[in-house]
Amino acid sequence: MTRAGGLTVGVVGGTGHTGGELCRLLLGHPEVRTILPTARTEAAFALVHPNLTGSGLAFLPVERLAERAGELDVVFFCTPSGEAMRQARHYAGRGVCTIDLGADFRFADPLVYQRVYGAEHADPGLLAQARYGVTELNRDEIATARLIANPGCYANTAILALAPLLRAGLARPDVPIGIHAVNGTTGAGNTPKKAIMHAEVAGAMLSYSLEGHRHGPELEAFFTTFAGRPVEVDLDTAHGNFARGIHLRADVHLTAAHTRDELLELYTEAYGGEHFVVVNTQPKLGALNEKQYEIYPNLNHVVGSNFCHLGLDTGRGGQVARIVAVTDNLVKGAAGSAIQNMNVALGIDERTGLTAYAL
Amino acid sequence: MTRAGGLTVGVVGGTGHTGGELCRLLLGHPEVRTILPTARTEAAFALVHPNLTGSGLAFLPVERLAERAGELDVVFFCTPSGEAMRQARHYAGRGVCTIDLGADFRFADPLVYQRVYGAEHADPGLLAQARYGVTELNRDEIATARLIANPGCYANTAILALAPLLRAGLARPDVPIGIHAVNGTTGAGNTPKKAIMHAEVAGAMLSYSLEGHRHGPELEAFFTTFAGRPVEVDLDTAHGNFARGIHLRADVHLTAAHTRDELLELYTEAYGGEHFVVVNTQPKLGALNEKQYEIYPNLNHVVGSNFCHLGLDTGRGGQVARIVAVTDNLVKGAAGSAIQNMNVALGIDERTGLTAYAL
Amino acid sequence: MTRAGGLTVGVVGGTGHTGGELCRLLLGHPEVRTILPTARTEAAFALVHPNLTGSGLAFLPVERLAERAGELDVVFFCTPSGEAMRQARHYAGRGVCTIDLGADFRFADPLVYQRVYGAEHADPGLLAQARYGVTELNRDEIATARLIANPGCYANTAILALAPLLRAGLARPDVPIGIHAVNGTTGAGNTPKKAIMHAEVAGAMLSYSLEGHRHGPELEAFFTTFAGRPVEVDLDTAHGNFARGIHLRADVHLTAAHTRDELLELYTEAYGGEHFVVVNTQPKLGALNEKQYEIYPNLNHVVGSNFCHLGLDTGRGGQVARIVAVTDNLVKGAAGSAIQNMNVALGIDERTGLTAYAL
Amino acid sequence: MTRAGGLTVGVVGGTGHTGGELCRLLLGHPEVRTILPTARTEAAFALVHPNLTGSGLAFLPVERLAERAGELDVVFFCTPSGEAMRQARHYAGRGVCTIDLGADFRFADPLVYQRVYGAEHADPGLLAQARYGVTELNRDEIATARLIANPGCYANTAILALAPLLRAGLARPDVPIGIHAVNGTTGAGNTPKKAIMHAEVAGAMLSYSLEGHRHGPELEAFFTTFAGRPVEVDLDTAHGNFARGIHLRADVHLTAAHTRDELLELYTEAYGGEHFVVVNTQPKLGALNEKQYEIYPNLNHVVGSNFCHLGLDTGRGGQVARIVAVTDNLVKGAAGSAIQNMNVALGIDERTGLTAYAL
Repeated sequence: MTRAGGLTVGVVGGTGHTGGELCRLLLGHPEVRTILPTARTEAAFALVHPNLTGSGLAFLPVERLAERAGELDVVFFCTPSGEAMRQARHYAGRGVCTIDLGADFRFADPLVYQRVYGAEHADPGLLAQARYGVTELNRDEIATARLIANPGCYANTAILALAPLLRAGLARPDVPIGIHAVNGTTGAGNTPKKAIMHAEVAGAMLSYSLEGHRHGPELEAFFTTFAGRPVEVDLDTAHGNFARGIHLRADVHLTAAHTRDELLELYTEAYGGEHFVVVNTQPKLGALNEKQYEIYPNLNHVVGSNFCHLGLDTGRGGQVARIVAVTDNLVKGAAGSAIQNMNVALGIDERTGLTAYAL
Repeated sequence: MTRAGGLTVGVVGGTGHTGGELCRLLLGHPEVRTILPTARTEAAFALVHPNLTGSGLAFLPVERLAERAGELDVVFFCTPSGEAMRQARHYAGRGVCTIDLGADFRFADPLVYQRVYGAEHADPGLLAQARYGVTELNRDEIATARLIANPGCYANTAILALAPLLRAGLARPDVPIGIHAVNGTTGAGNTPKKAIMHAEVAGAMLSYSLEGHRHGPELEAFFTTFAGRPVEVDLDTAHGNFARGIHLRADVHLTAAHTRDELLELYTEAYGGEHFVVVNTQPKLGALNEKQYEIYPNLNHVVGSNFCHLGLDTGRGGQVARIVAVTDNLVKGAAGSAIQNMNVALGIDERTGLTAYAL
Repeated sequence: MTRAGGLTVGVVGGTGHTGGELCRLLLGHPEVRTILPTARTEAAFALVHPNLTGSGLAFLPVERLAERAGELDVVFFCTPSGEAMRQARHYAGRGVCTIDLGADFRFADPLVYQRVYGAEHADPGLLAQARYGVTELNRDEIATARLIANPGCYANTAILALAPLLRAGLARPDVPIGIHAVNGTTGAGNTPKKAIMHAEVAGAMLSYSLEGHRHGPELEAFFTTFAGRPVEVDLDTAHGNFARGIHLRADVHLTAAHTRDELLELYTEAYGGEHFVVVNTQPKLGALNEKQYEIYPNLNHVVGSNFCHLGLDTGRGGQVARIVAVTDNLVKGAAGSAIQNMNVALGIDERTGLTAYAL
Repeated sequence: MTRAGGLTVGVVGGTGHTGGELCRLLLGHPEVRTILPTARTEAAFALVHPNLTGSGLAFLPVERLAERAGELDVVFFCTPSGEAMRQARHYAGRGVCTIDLGADFRFADPLVYQRVYGAEHADPGLLAQARYGVTELNRDEIATARLIANPGCYANTAILALAPLLRAGLARPDVPIGIHAVNGTTGAGNTPKKAIMHAEVAGAMLSYSLEGHRHGPELEAFFTTFAGRPVEVDLDTAHGNFARGIHLRADVHLTAAHTRDELLELYTEAYGGEHFVVVNTQPKLGALNEKQYEIYPNLNHVVGSNFCHLGLDTGRGGQVARIVAVTDNLVKGAAGSAIQNMNVALGIDERTGLTAYAL
């Protein structure tokens, strides 16, 4: 499916954390020959992404990339909301596999987009073509898609954490699902602000967007379709005292009591064939309430990789499922899953270029 | 009310984080003359608590302290569950103001204690005398108590965060209150374990006790009495990448929609006269979903102090209140509130010895 | 020596980390009645220093403070270099005890100031009155001074670390003293810059000023006088992954071999009467090269306090002394030692207002 | 040079940080077919290295590996000092490329080993065959070696930082080179100890081995041969508040004054052909002493990769060179350089399996 000699890939918006991470991963992708990141700045690539010094990459203006659309196999958008919707048709219309890491194509309904993002959608006609890219759940649709809406970092993590329970109909519909997620400070962007200076966050954490993080409606839209009924979530977001990764926990009130083992079985079945989703099945030992940190996943075991590690327990005599999920917000939460989707869409082995384990 | 020449205070269990913190604060208390911390170890005090080098404190065996019960004005227990219940009568029976920082006297019903802590209560007859020590809510009872059950660190923080809403009857009874709290690693004790080594936690966080942290039933017992109806909480606990402090958030579904300003008014009224509870009333500016970290409290602004900072917002058109509370787990969450209770019980100005602001 | 009813204290430049810390400490000083911090901004004090919410402090314009010079007992300057030299005469000339936490009066020779700071000194005539404020070494001079140059944070820490060796003439004059110090990111100021954002520093550290930190010449000027011979230092500075504190180590090549115990004796004699300098004299145990972290001081044991903890060992068969010193850069390195100097200059017990131990 | 179908590689001592990291990197090495890590424990591999869950690796007892020596192409030792010297002959004698990541073969002279490590060398006869594996400097020797002594993490980093200056004869022989290095806490091993618990290190750093870290003599032995004259170093070691990476700085007093540009030219020439050594040549801007963090390397830009980033400046009018070097202590400082050496010894492209950039 790929052109002889390897793929040519554009990265619109190559200066941010996500764009840099995408370039990093594409540099290690054996099928990718040419990477074309764009920037508004004239800054040298290695000054913006010093970790990629020696890679030989260089920025080009976004207009130059647009002129070369015919050369591209794939284009990624790592742009603020509102950009991709204006440029996507230019690429997707030429058959370029177009993957938006932003929010422009995540909602089927342009009015929902408008409500959540506060601006009218610029190209609602494209929405019908877009496929929502949680690879593990939408693989078949992604395989034939030419316009892919990569999910938000919190959304992707939460969806993997909750899908087996919702698919099995185990969650009580009358109790909202509580999701509390802590993200690294790379999730706050790289524009200097007082609140995200080191001395402010070191030794602490930062709650934000309590009025409602935009990934909340994204989750509800997805789950409502997925579960076939309205699903309500309380999504709590914060930045932790670390640069990368999402540590997420969800409380799901169940329609009937279940044991930890029963839920673990549900999850291992759901993800048994998935390379990138690992369920921690360590048995619980010791006395009541003895702390056993190892039965839950640890962010350090996924940061830098495309893995999502899951663990769980039950509370209130099995009436509540408590799920923990960890991912790297810039990999599985963004650039990694985008490449995973690219691989699927191009008919390449899904794991290609994503083989790295966490440090 | 205090003896001429200052107070003599015992600290049973002086080797842990809480016992050390209590000594630190008592050293700065102008009414305290003598501090007698106990230890099972023969180790020098300054080796166990190097930050208190120069204080001149020394450990004595717990048996020696028991012999000197008649000299004491106050005794604090910083012991694992099960110790205080065996020794408290010895002191309280002599009129010594007895304050347990552990869980032994937090439940009025010994069967609830047994269910939550997995062991029979050794002195159920004392429970009727014990008063639960959330100073801001129980000040009058504490003033006359001789046996005080200091609340758990999560419980104290969550109670201050939620009491105004529950007192006003604004919380929907049919939706559990989701509470997600991140605590410093001092909350994990000082016994070396692999999971809490630096390299394991640095850059990450640790979920624990998902089957149900014991402060959950403590909260439910308190709130059920306080609100006059059953209150259910989902308490999620984790250790963050910092040594001290609790960053806690709660989601409360409301019986009717309220604005942020209405809730802020409720909170400022509730805590207007309280020295140690500060409500962040900064107005929200900017566009929809613009991040404004400063309207929520930051752990760095309370660590080292006895303050609890509160902030809040509303979601879903005002149907959900989202509260953020930060405290120092070893001060307001333990040793500081214990001294605050001591002050009240002895008729001293409540703020005495607790005047330090956060760094 | 103090006015009836307590001291009135001005803080010129109250918005930075040092100014805020000075206010924090002055709020706990029992002899201080009125604190007058200045600011160029109209911002509310509690928004700039949220940790001091509830203190009731408010900024006034620097011009208003100048008009009220006659009311002041003490004025502190927490201003960038170049400010204090222009305003100090206004206060010192009226007999106000004037303490500059900046560098304007640290060099007796205005040409050295000009060389190091790149600007001409605006009031060289005042330099002769200024006393350099390392309290432990210059107490008598400070007691009668009305203009005190508070040492730089690195300088104060390094001076305490090295003074006993230099006074005893044990350091080889032909080998520069290597000093490597890591400071918290509060030392980098509170102006947002990309390099000191959280995601840049978390998990790393930042070297800076390799061409020569300005505290290097300050150290050399002090030590050359103190030791009565030219002293050369290589001062290496960096910001570590923490907000507060200096962890400093120095290598001193000795004129003759000495044992660790001999040097510990030298240090304990030198600082035996000092409240704020603690020498870690724990014996070395175990086999050759066995790691024994506890014999060296830990920053966590001083942060928040005015203490300097010292530890040491010898290398190369006793031919090199290796000293470790830790202080809180904003307390002993700035605001705390400034208050210590104020106490001495006003004839108050030196420890007043500085009794807090580290957390 | 490799066997048809890929390499079979043994990892003696697969449970520690270094052994785990070696397995991680070997899993991504395209020429490696079989990885055989040994352990004394019966623990499942994924429980010891949860980041490698899904890799399919399993421990075998070291005796089983010894029996299979004939199958191996390469064996790595990630064992405490004293192990490799007893087992290496078994493998090297069969022609297996044998790479010790410990210290057993780093000193040509067994008496130096004995002095530094406090134990007699068990197989001094092998020392003559061993080659010291700083690939960038000893590539030719390594290409034909069958026993490779991989350098210590500090040593490798310091050698890359200093070699150009020493080779050019620019360092004054009468002044020791001051080297101060901060390492992640993974460098402290994974045995739980109080000093390296999270709450002890968070917000601080830990000095250790002030009597002389063993990599100091290793450096001196190497440099004395390399420079053709005695070289003395003061090596200061500490653990920082991060899990991985070495941030190292060196002060070198020069025989004559040089500009920063001259030294940068020396370094870029020295490392111009090296893939894994990057020299930061950003120009200095701004005023005297203006902080410009970006001209020095940042640990975050190398962690997870095999790169060493170098930066430098001059002090005292060009008379002192100040070098900063950053590496990942477990990659370039251990497992990565070991694989780089393996590649060279087996005639594979040196970069194979080491293409990852830092996160």
